[in-house]
Amino acid sequence: MTPTTVETLETVSGGVTTPQGFRAAGVGAGIKAAGLDLALLVSDVPATAAAVFTTNRAVAAPILLSREHLLRSEGVARAVVVNSGCANACTGELGLQVAHQMAEETARLVACPAEQVLVASTGVIGVALSIDKIRRALPGAVAALSPDHGSAAARAIMTTDPFPKEAAARVSVGRRVVAVGGMAKGSGMIEPMLATMLGFVTTDAAVPRPLLDRALREVVADTFNAITVDGECSTNDSVMLLANGASGATIDESTYAAFTHALKTVCLRLALGIVRGGEGATKLVTVTVTGAQSTTEARRAARAIANSPLVKTAIHGNDPNWGRLIAVAGRAGVAFDLSRAAVAIGSVVLFRDGRPHDEASPEAASYLNNDDVSVSVDLGVGSAASTVWTCDLSAEYVRINAEYRT
Amino acid sequence: MTPTTVETLETVSGGVTTPQGFRAAGVGAGIKAAGLDLALLVSDVPATAAAVFTTNRAVAAPILLSREHLLRSEGVARAVVVNSGCANACTGELGLQVAHQMAEETARLVACPAEQVLVASTGVIGVALSIDKIRRALPGAVAALSPDHGSAAARAIMTTDPFPKEAAARVSVGRRVVAVGGMAKGSGMIEPMLATMLGFVTTDAAVPRPLLDRALREVVADTFNAITVDGECSTNDSVMLLANGASGATIDESTYAAFTHALKTVCLRLALGIVRGGEGATKLVTVTVTGAQSTTEARRAARAIANSPLVKTAIHGNDPNWGRLIAVAGRAGVAFDLSRAAVAIGSVVLFRDGRPHDEASPEAASYLNNDDVSVSVDLGVGSAASTVWTCDLSAEYVRINAEYRT
Repeated sequence: MTPTTVETLETVSGGVTTPQGFRAAGVGAGIKAAGLDLALLVSDVPATAAAVFTTNRAVAAPILLSREHLLRSEGVARAVVVNSGCANACTGELGLQVAHQMAEETARLVACPAEQVLVASTGVIGVALSIDKIRRALPGAVAALSPDHGSAAARAIMTTDPFPKEAAARVSVGRRVVAVGGMAKGSGMIEPMLATMLGFVTTDAAVPRPLLDRALREVVADTFNAITVDGECSTNDSVMLLANGASGATIDESTYAAFTHALKTVCLRLALGIVRGGEGATKLVTVTVTGAQSTTEARRAARAIANSPLVKTAIHGNDPNWGRLIAVAGRAGVAFDLSRAAVAIGSVVLFRDGRPHDEASPEAASYLNNDDVSVSVDLGVGSAASTVWTCDLSAEYVRINAEYRT
Repeated sequence: MTPTTVETLETVSGGVTTPQGFRAAGVGAGIKAAGLDLALLVSDVPATAAAVFTTNRAVAAPILLSREHLLRSEGVARAVVVNSGCANACTGELGLQVAHQMAEETARLVACPAEQVLVASTGVIGVALSIDKIRRALPGAVAALSPDHGSAAARAIMTTDPFPKEAAARVSVGRRVVAVGGMAKGSGMIEPMLATMLGFVTTDAAVPRPLLDRALREVVADTFNAITVDGECSTNDSVMLLANGASGATIDESTYAAFTHALKTVCLRLALGIVRGGEGATKLVTVTVTGAQSTTEARRAARAIANSPLVKTAIHGNDPNWGRLIAVAGRAGVAFDLSRAAVAIGSVVLFRDGRPHDEASPEAASYLNNDDVSVSVDLGVGSAASTVWTCDLSAEYVRINAEYRT
């Protein structure tokens, strides 16, 4: 074993400015009633950029703009500007103009072409975003840009998130060390709108665009796309990844695995932070489905379980209700064999070989008192598996979403 | 216009024994801690029978038995025996034996072949159903059979339903009058199991089996299958329809429309009763999607809206939150054009031509104070439409489902 073939991964404190050559700022622009609401992330040099966006067909203006800029710049970005407090969604032609103006003003201040600026917004839907407020606040944000202000940026993208989400990791790539850092927000409900999930990830590795795209898509599938709070998908969901090469290391096929390992570590921590901060959430729930005919079917069953209000309320109430898990697996539209299926809560098996093991219920109920619990269902028909993370469903979720505007 | 071509439909009070030649009973067998828990429905003569069952792959024993009996009897049934308090689901080979014994004992007492008895169960999953309790109670049920005891049967099939669901209608078919009656239960949560929806419908028309099957499937699609409380589908869901010909009228293609009109009237009233009695429900919500590319896409979008916890909590809180309706329509996986879409709450348009009409919000909020509300979304891409009924999502739903066994 030579040192250059050993991957050393270390999670570290930090966020988007942990990788070299990135600066960030978070300022108050007055879009929200109070607090930070405008974040700026700038790479010292043009960075390779990849992004994934919501599949919602009611796409918000900042996503239309960011897609267009990524095409025009051929995947190069210098800056990302993000506001909270207003989603700039369902705002028509005027909303698109505002998104363009946000990018143009940022480009002017950081001295780059407008198409190298990406834009994201989160907050109230159907309300005009004031370009004046953003124009007034942007110079201050540019002045505040610093490698030390990643946390301010992470706070500025929050809406009703109970805490900011930041993560960072370092991994050895050959003889060099590459850093990956990120920040995210979601699933706090935003005034009258769906939870928007935003993720921004940086790295000081140089990553050719096709590899960067592939890495982001692979990692998002198992992290940001493997979580669910309430099965909703917003008009503004975005995850953006910038690679600026400041570490001197370039990722190729031989170091791709190490890089994606670091990327996944960061994205998973951010994604689990989103679930832990879910509305009314009191528990992080890991749902694993095994024994499926395919990974797609495993994921489908795991998602059905993770989105089932009956499963989520049972877990909230510390009720080891294996019957609900079986029944949801049975209706998930995947191959399933009741006589070979199994259900476990934690490591406690409650159903196997076609019959209940209710004698283990007290042990499972006691396990469910933890804040971090896992449930697993074996579909009994194959060998594929998938994991999805969710939170429990509490009366507090209903209160937040029923009473927000009243 | 001659009298024989005019359809006259009249909704009447009553239930499964409103059609001639049906008797019912509801008795207590001790399966539940207290109250009625065994229902018996008997036709004086062998009736043509049709049924639809859950699509859940974790199918309960009574459904396996009823399917088998309908095949063996070639769609003829004399009796239906139903217990509440125990779902006889996930109970393996023993559970299937118990379902058989229930049918055999009923057949012996009403003097018909065993395959002319259908069985349904609802209640706790994974717990053995005591055949002894049923054997002890059945003779009393047979003795109590009466055209006046439809309501007792409707109460005996309830679990945590807040009220029994019965409906009946009469329709002229040529010079004769045909009655359709029914009872249903659901969506009260059943001890540790999913809501089970059961529906039993009778008619004194004679209906050839292919027409009866077709009528049931067509009507169920727009009634029992067009409601949702929480998107779940139980291991025991069943709707059974018995036609005994006692009215002397026979349905053929020329009178099929009148018959299905009456059948739909009864099934819709039962289905809406299930929604009104949904766990924690305070409002009946009619979700209509128009402007879809196909009926399938309209139904899919309507279901997504009706199952969205964000939409359901907003309606619970009287919040005319059109943004959530747009966003769910956008993520429903159907063709959708934001610039041509429209949202109305009641008759108040809140979004049209790509822009909000928030000036109408107070009027919409005031309308939402009603117990019976409608929301509609025009997808802006076609002319197909579909309606789905649901209830709001309250903190009470969470309480019922989180705390049931604690």
